[in-house]
Amino acid sequence: MSGHILVTGGAGCIGSDLAEALLNRGCQVTVLDNLSSGKWVHIVDLMRRPGFQFIEGDLLDLATLDEAMHGVEMVYHLAANPDVKFAPGDPTDKDLRQNTLCTYNVLESMRRHGVRRLAFSSTSAIYGICERQPIAEDQAPHPISLYGATKLGCEAMIGAFQNLFDMDCWIFRFANVVGPKVRKRGRTVIGDFIDKLRRDPSRLQILGDGRQAKSYLLAEECVAAMLFAVDHAPRGLNTFNLGCPDSLSVTRIAEMVAAAMGLGGVQYEYTGGEGGWPGDVPRFRLDVTAINRLGWSARYNSEEAVALAIEASLISSRDHQGADILEAACRP
Amino acid sequence: MSGHILVTGGAGCIGSDLAEALLNRGCQVTVLDNLSSGKWVHIVDLMRRPGFQFIEGDLLDLATLDEAMHGVEMVYHLAANPDVKFAPGDPTDKDLRQNTLCTYNVLESMRRHGVRRLAFSSTSAIYGICERQPIAEDQAPHPISLYGATKLGCEAMIGAFQNLFDMDCWIFRFANVVGPKVRKRGRTVIGDFIDKLRRDPSRLQILGDGRQAKSYLLAEECVAAMLFAVDHAPRGLNTFNLGCPDSLSVTRIAEMVAAAMGLGGVQYEYTGGEGGWPGDVPRFRLDVTAINRLGWSARYNSEEAVALAIEASLISSRDHQGADILEAACRP
Repeated sequence: MSGHILVTGGAGCIGSDLAEALLNRGCQVTVLDNLSSGKWVHIVDLMRRPGFQFIEGDLLDLATLDEAMHGVEMVYHLAANPDVKFAPGDPTDKDLRQNTLCTYNVLESMRRHGVRRLAFSSTSAIYGICERQPIAEDQAPHPISLYGATKLGCEAMIGAFQNLFDMDCWIFRFANVVGPKVRKRGRTVIGDFIDKLRRDPSRLQILGDGRQAKSYLLAEECVAAMLFAVDHAPRGLNTFNLGCPDSLSVTRIAEMVAAAMGLGGVQYEYTGGEGGWPGDVPRFRLDVTAINRLGWSARYNSEEAVALAIEASLISSRDHQGADILEAACRP
Repeated sequence: MSGHILVTGGAGCIGSDLAEALLNRGCQVTVLDNLSSGKWVHIVDLMRRPGFQFIEGDLLDLATLDEAMHGVEMVYHLAANPDVKFAPGDPTDKDLRQNTLCTYNVLESMRRHGVRRLAFSSTSAIYGICERQPIAEDQAPHPISLYGATKLGCEAMIGAFQNLFDMDCWIFRFANVVGPKVRKRGRTVIGDFIDKLRRDPSRLQILGDGRQAKSYLLAEECVAAMLFAVDHAPRGLNTFNLGCPDSLSVTRIAEMVAAAMGLGGVQYEYTGGEGGWPGDVPRFRLDVTAINRLGWSARYNSEEAVALAIEASLISSRDHQGADILEAACRP
């Protein structure tokens, strides 16, 4: 694959790895990111590479989006609000704006520019609570969070545009993606546990009852899977679960983090309840037969992926002040 | 059931029948409608009844919506753009605005006003093209039209709000609803055929190959089914197909219309192709076991429903100029 690729959210954890992989394949890459959760530090090395262009802008701003779409052959639309948690008092239109409206804008800009190839980062959160496990792609989705609901709305619009305007689309329903970059205060279970144990190594508050058990996938594997599927899946509309078929409990992750930090005798305190927050899906495993049949499988299961992510996070981690200093230093 | 009910789209074909049925049950009814497709003629008789209030306004206008939500116990959210057809050159954001954004506004206004009961008119168009027929509610949806895609997005948001804010919701996936009021130029197959045959009784242009075959439901039965389900279905999130399990071909409808108009020897001219327009689902039947098990069944099958709708349309029909005069006369 070569050509000119637009990566929305390309300064994010997964998007910046994807942008680098596309550059390595000889593609020209434009990253469009509003840096609301993406970071300069993720793309500072890419800025020096030939064929790379960064546009700071928001997908709700159509003029900027149209500028970024110019001459593009394919879009990887990864921009989204990465914080899936909803807390009482949060605005209820955040996901509507950042998922549904942004994705519509991307689709409409593509249509107007004659860009017909789209890969989209969806989520296993679209499924909601399913009796049948592991969950295959043809299972009816019943999202219980605003994040999952609006991602499903995006998938549906992509399907309609694909049909009406003869596009080729790849929808990827991610498991929980983990890795050294995916470490933001309170946003992921690994980062949350590391932060809390740094503050107080004697005890750890765990959201829910700790028996939540989910599928995990390393960010670098997630990127590899997307590229493989776009290379090998047929034209039309393709939908793939991306993950591994097993799951890992939150309490087990707590134990792994504590062990990796060399801490013993940590007291676990549970906030209680099946889910960690309103809209949390407490347990799921993904049926990944479809992507396996295409020829791609995750090398690491959930426990291995989480172990690698913990190790990488501890090696690369700095305190938040340090991260902020680093981010400021990278800013042009 | 009594209490104060808000019917969005209550000046529409189905909404006005529903508003009347609710008044007959002793409810106080507020209709909110922007009259973009709803009509004064549908509600003029209701205006004189005690307990009825009409607010002309758009669901995109939050202040008007909040005014209408005041003191309400339940919402029937039927407002939508009823024209499911997409033609090249049409704006692609019509359904996004009129389905997705309006439904979000309804949900958010309900949340802020503590209104926790919602019935929603969804559509069989969310399913798209399904191999397994008839289509049950637990089949994975793959809409191929912007109308179906945005309705699925609405369903997903309703599910998330239901879960996050402890609501009771009834989602109804309508078959093709027909009846004397549902007769607008080019919008329904029956009205389209009557109009064309009035202009030229010797021949009839039929969109597609005429073998499109869909499920039909009389508007008055649709209203009865919604009321029954809200009375009898359990709390939480309920989703029902509303229709009958059979289907009827477009060519058969053409023959029925011609026969009802007393026309012989009509020459049928097909525009060709499986679907009638981009995004049309050429064939579907609905599995209505769920609503049947609850205790409600359509009295009329698709052919009987269409026959009654043709008859009623021919009896009540006026030419469009006449309808416009009638509408103007009803306007206060």
